[in-house]
Amino acid sequence: MSRDRLYLFDTTLRDGAQTAGVEFSLEDKIAITRLIEELGVDYVEGGYPGANPVDTAFFEEKRTKSATFTAFGMTKRAGRSAANDPGVQGLLNSAATATCFVAKAWDYQVKLALGSTTEEHIEGLGDTVRTASGAGKEVLVDLEHFFDGFKANPEYALSCVTRAIEAGARWVVLCDTNGGTMPAEVRQIVGTVLKFAPGDKLGIHPHDDTGQAVANALAAVDAGVRQIQGTLNGLGERCGNANLITLIPTLVLKPYYAERFETGVTEAHLERLTHISRAFDDRLNRAPARQAPYVGASAFATKAGIHASALLKDFSTYEHVPPESVGNERSIMVSQQAGKSNLLTALSRHGIVLEKDDPRLEKLLATVKEREARGYSYDGADASFAVLAHSVLGTLPSFFDVEHYRAMVERRHNAQGEEVTVTEAVVKVRVEGELLMSVAEGNGPVNALDQALRKDLGVYSKRIEDLELADFKVRILDGGTGAVTRVLVESRDGSGERWSTIGVSSNIIDASFEALYESITYKLLKTEAASVSAAEETLQHATAVG
Amino acid sequence: MSRDRLYLFDTTLRDGAQTAGVEFSLEDKIAITRLIEELGVDYVEGGYPGANPVDTAFFEEKRTKSATFTAFGMTKRAGRSAANDPGVQGLLNSAATATCFVAKAWDYQVKLALGSTTEEHIEGLGDTVRTASGAGKEVLVDLEHFFDGFKANPEYALSCVTRAIEAGARWVVLCDTNGGTMPAEVRQIVGTVLKFAPGDKLGIHPHDDTGQAVANALAAVDAGVRQIQGTLNGLGERCGNANLITLIPTLVLKPYYAERFETGVTEAHLERLTHISRAFDDRLNRAPARQAPYVGASAFATKAGIHASALLKDFSTYEHVPPESVGNERSIMVSQQAGKSNLLTALSRHGIVLEKDDPRLEKLLATVKEREARGYSYDGADASFAVLAHSVLGTLPSFFDVEHYRAMVERRHNAQGEEVTVTEAVVKVRVEGELLMSVAEGNGPVNALDQALRKDLGVYSKRIEDLELADFKVRILDGGTGAVTRVLVESRDGSGERWSTIGVSSNIIDASFEALYESITYKLLKTEAASVSAAEETLQHATAVG
Repeated sequence: MSRDRLYLFDTTLRDGAQTAGVEFSLEDKIAITRLIEELGVDYVEGGYPGANPVDTAFFEEKRTKSATFTAFGMTKRAGRSAANDPGVQGLLNSAATATCFVAKAWDYQVKLALGSTTEEHIEGLGDTVRTASGAGKEVLVDLEHFFDGFKANPEYALSCVTRAIEAGARWVVLCDTNGGTMPAEVRQIVGTVLKFAPGDKLGIHPHDDTGQAVANALAAVDAGVRQIQGTLNGLGERCGNANLITLIPTLVLKPYYAERFETGVTEAHLERLTHISRAFDDRLNRAPARQAPYVGASAFATKAGIHASALLKDFSTYEHVPPESVGNERSIMVSQQAGKSNLLTALSRHGIVLEKDDPRLEKLLATVKEREARGYSYDGADASFAVLAHSVLGTLPSFFDVEHYRAMVERRHNAQGEEVTVTEAVVKVRVEGELLMSVAEGNGPVNALDQALRKDLGVYSKRIEDLELADFKVRILDGGTGAVTRVLVESRDGSGERWSTIGVSSNIIDASFEALYESITYKLLKTEAASVSAAEETLQHATAVG
Repeated sequence: MSRDRLYLFDTTLRDGAQTAGVEFSLEDKIAITRLIEELGVDYVEGGYPGANPVDTAFFEEKRTKSATFTAFGMTKRAGRSAANDPGVQGLLNSAATATCFVAKAWDYQVKLALGSTTEEHIEGLGDTVRTASGAGKEVLVDLEHFFDGFKANPEYALSCVTRAIEAGARWVVLCDTNGGTMPAEVRQIVGTVLKFAPGDKLGIHPHDDTGQAVANALAAVDAGVRQIQGTLNGLGERCGNANLITLIPTLVLKPYYAERFETGVTEAHLERLTHISRAFDDRLNRAPARQAPYVGASAFATKAGIHASALLKDFSTYEHVPPESVGNERSIMVSQQAGKSNLLTALSRHGIVLEKDDPRLEKLLATVKEREARGYSYDGADASFAVLAHSVLGTLPSFFDVEHYRAMVERRHNAQGEEVTVTEAVVKVRVEGELLMSVAEGNGPVNALDQALRKDLGVYSKRIEDLELADFKVRILDGGTGAVTRVLVESRDGSGERWSTIGVSSNIIDASFEALYESITYKLLKTEAASVSAAEETLQHATAVG
């Protein structure tokens, strides 16, 4: 059966940039373009050249490899032709292959926001599209407020669609700008539009203000449109745009869509989905949403209860798609048995292979459970899990011991009478039998302890030179400063690897110190393998040469 | 026009309890029931009595005021009658008014998970419903895996529906247990079910595994069902259940639904929506989702850009519903003007009334902006905003000054050779000209500083006696321990009021101390009004007596 081609249009770098608290640098835009292309989408809308220096610089060269590089902009201003409009000409002179012009499909908006008439606006739309098309660009038109406009004045909204197509637009995109349209309304209105324009020239641009952006995109596809606009992780103004990370696996994996449509997304693209979603959050410095469809840490998690035993018999019982297909993992927290198979999976991630009946597995499971009862959580602290596993299995080298530490913060007036805060930490460690004592100042007690701890680790100092702290999070588990504190430290090194360690204590400093200590231990563990193989290599080399 | 009644069923305390990382205490369940009832829903499913001690205790008395108090459980086991099944009898003897029994509508599952036959299972379903109905309970049946079951064997799935209704069930609920069904499929399958059962006896229970739980609930309503099951903030296993906080305003405010349906939710309920959603997150110790539909901090936020000026001319331009209708606020970060009206709203919440052209407003706005640029955020720290406003407006009494503080944490070995951590803090404050110095130990430096600070505040000591810390959150704003630290402290007092204060500094201890200091200041501010009026009363009384 021949399938229709569905086109995916990513607007993370344009509409996504409207998100409160998000600002992209040029470097961000370049890196995010790489991530978007890993998804296999057809269009990357990179921004609005001329609106700000970053976007202008971004469009100085072609930034995409496979996707159509698209610039966003306004149709020509009233009172001049598109050929003489600097905004339009700026777009045409940019490195973009395609240009997406926004026009207003709600008559009330034309009057209110532009102080113009619908006749003038629609004339400008036609002129702009013709000019851009004549200049060799692929032309898209975003019809802002299309659905609200259609409800108010269907004749004007429809004439925007037909005029754009007559003038040479490849795509006319129906935007639910306020995000308040219901899927049933989308289906109905798109049905009417299809009487005036072919579905393979229509796109949908939904927003998530009623939690239905994904459903509205699919409702429009069901009705006949063939392009979907969305963003990575649903980024976007207010409640966000349609989430491509959610839409893509649905289109590719669900028979209801896969049987009727094909996209540019391959199985290999899909297996990167979880990675792409999390890498994007990393760049935004956001915590990934645990409950996100397909890619969330909880998306395939099952808690102890009525579901778990059936799940173990057949995963399709409680999983709508296989987690591996989107690069995610199953996580079952249910019984000794399920715990063990989880544990084996986690161990294999760290290159530790054990038999299912190895008695040390039982011991490790008991240790993990006992620590989780005390407030540890290894879900988000994989490096601490590796350290704990090596420790319980007896394969953790004894790198160094901390004999003593002290941190002091003092706010006082200095000799000039100014208020100053001084922080100092002292650490005494034993490395291969030798006692080393270091002192350091810092921005705060954790920073000072970190500085002091790393100042002198004897033979290990060189191996942790490129280690740095990327993030530090604190949670109180029972509420109140008297309760248990959980500290998560994220570290990274020159190789680009990031890892997380955890510390738990009633004392925030103890908890932080534990997480710092484990981060260094993990770094030493991972360089241990390298330093052993380097030593072996040297040895082999020596032998060979000898 | 007469409207159909739609029923809302909340399963936060039952299906929501399946969420990874969520565990409700009895006290949680009681408090959350109050929140759910504030929404105006029809049913509260409180848990599964008999499954664990908390749920059993919860069902020892009736916990709801207006909603139908509902218990969840399994249909009778094979080999005995419902009248002799301890599980079923436990449900019937609980304080619940309604019982919701789960049965399997997918033939494959009956074999796989129960090792039973469809005949036996459906017989047990009928027997259980008849028995419970005969015992005077309102009976609901959750048909697990209904949609997958219907695709595999429509005859068996449909016979579960008809048997339950014949046996006396008030509601048969079609569950999309794996969450993988598309809205178009829901519409189609519900359409078929309606040939065998009336819509006003059917409910829908969707999951969010493709990001369409809300859309699936509405698709089922469009097709004819009259009960929706969901949870607060979409809590639930894996990606969660249908989010009632999103669904309710859509049903009540959107003409597409409001014209056809009525619910038990009033305008007054709806105005509490944002508060309920955030209070629930507070109880779970989760950060509210900023982009959540209707209730997110960004749901009505507009960034400077092409939309903002039109928005200022007519809010309906970029808002699909008025933010006040759901107890949320508009937030426009665009011009001095927009900032000022925001500020006036915030001030009025603290009983501070200023004219729009008061020059101090300009000064306060500039101060807020300057501080937000440095990392402060007054969205979640309303008490700090009140303190700041009084300070800028010149109406903040000078309660006390901190001259000096010092906090020290030391880990060492004690005389017995055990490893111990000792934390000590010293604080020197000036109260009404007098210098007071206090020292205290604590679980950590923040706790010790808190203890020392409150040990002796002279004339103010009595007024802060019932102040306690409820929560303490730390965020690093730029990543790494060297970056800026933002501390949020939540406090509460005997009146039940909770308030949040913020501190920002490169030093976590300074930031924490600032938030602690502001919390005490806020408490003194709020008791200042009381103590002044008490003094005035005494004076009036004295005058009257005199």
